[in-house]
Amino acid sequence: MTEFIAPLQNLMDHFRRLPGIGGKTAIRLAFSVMELPEQEAEDFAAAILAAKREIHLCRECCNVSTEDVCPICADEGRDHSTVCVVEDAKAVLSFERVHDYRGVYHVLGGTLSPMNGIGPDHLHIRELLHRLGDDTVKEIIVATNPTVEGEATAMYLARILRPFGVTVSRLAYGIPVGGDLEYADEITLHRALEGRRPIG
Amino acid sequence: MTEFIAPLQNLMDHFRRLPGIGGKTAIRLAFSVMELPEQEAEDFAAAILAAKREIHLCRECCNVSTEDVCPICADEGRDHSTVCVVEDAKAVLSFERVHDYRGVYHVLGGTLSPMNGIGPDHLHIRELLHRLGDDTVKEIIVATNPTVEGEATAMYLARILRPFGVTVSRLAYGIPVGGDLEYADEITLHRALEGRRPIG
Repeated sequence: MTEFIAPLQNLMDHFRRLPGIGGKTAIRLAFSVMELPEQEAEDFAAAILAAKREIHLCRECCNVSTEDVCPICADEGRDHSTVCVVEDAKAVLSFERVHDYRGVYHVLGGTLSPMNGIGPDHLHIRELLHRLGDDTVKEIIVATNPTVEGEATAMYLARILRPFGVTVSRLAYGIPVGGDLEYADEITLHRALEGRRPIG
Repeated sequence: MTEFIAPLQNLMDHFRRLPGIGGKTAIRLAFSVMELPEQEAEDFAAAILAAKREIHLCRECCNVSTEDVCPICADEGRDHSTVCVVEDAKAVLSFERVHDYRGVYHVLGGTLSPMNGIGPDHLHIRELLHRLGDDTVKEIIVATNPTVEGEATAMYLARILRPFGVTVSRLAYGIPVGGDLEYADEITLHRALEGRRPIG
């Protein structure tokens, strides 16, 4: 045996294909799955299938949901006039953890990336524009990540949203709370200066 | 949605239970599985079940195997008089990668650990002793890890193997090749001195 036995190699390859999982981690994970109790391995396999089969995109906001319309969009208590546009479902979770935002979301499903062949049609932009049809939405907060692609996507959205007459805002940039000026990169410092606000 | 939707949470929990997978990694992995093509998710689930169902322990060496006797034990070209005793199947792979060792193996399935309630009966020691029944084995190389438990297991094995009249050896300790003396811990240096050999 100069290689892994086939079922182990196969499982390892599957783990390896997941993001951030290297060769050694894939080996460790495959071995640990092999050592799981039978019932737990079955539950794990079923959980993978369920995640694929039971999760759809919300008809309104394109967030992941087991329902046709996700609980956030279905919640009458939330402010449906404010839509926070994020790249993915993980960002929704980050905002929800803050317990501060009472508006709704729109999940783009990525960012524009011409280099990788991802244009506006690959994102849920059409669905976003569709939501502007009935005058409910007053403000759109573009909360894409502060990366090159996230910025480009924000710029693109600002441009195509202009004709709709809604307020389009962008998250504030600056020094993260608890961060140290010494370690802040130049662009962040530049943005922090630019966005300075009067105090007192 | 202040929490994950159920199928996602469930999948995340399964990932979380694997060794070395923390909360954030579990989230990332669960999301990436959700985004897999349907076919690939099905293959992944099947791979988990196959790893449980198709892999058994070799009747001879207790290594993982899809056959009753693993390819190494079944290989007539290998030296069946030398048995390298390792903690787990991963260690077998490490040795096999060296392409230098032509003997066979015996997988203990762990180390003695009274603290965790793991005694000799929990390891494949009985199976090892059984292999000494027909005078084939002449040398046993104890290759448990140089940890407290690995050492204790090596000592225990040396003691119970003595009556069988086989040579029992232990892997050499020392400075790892490419390592720097500056960073070697005291015990390793002590062992390296103790195990010094004449050169030239």
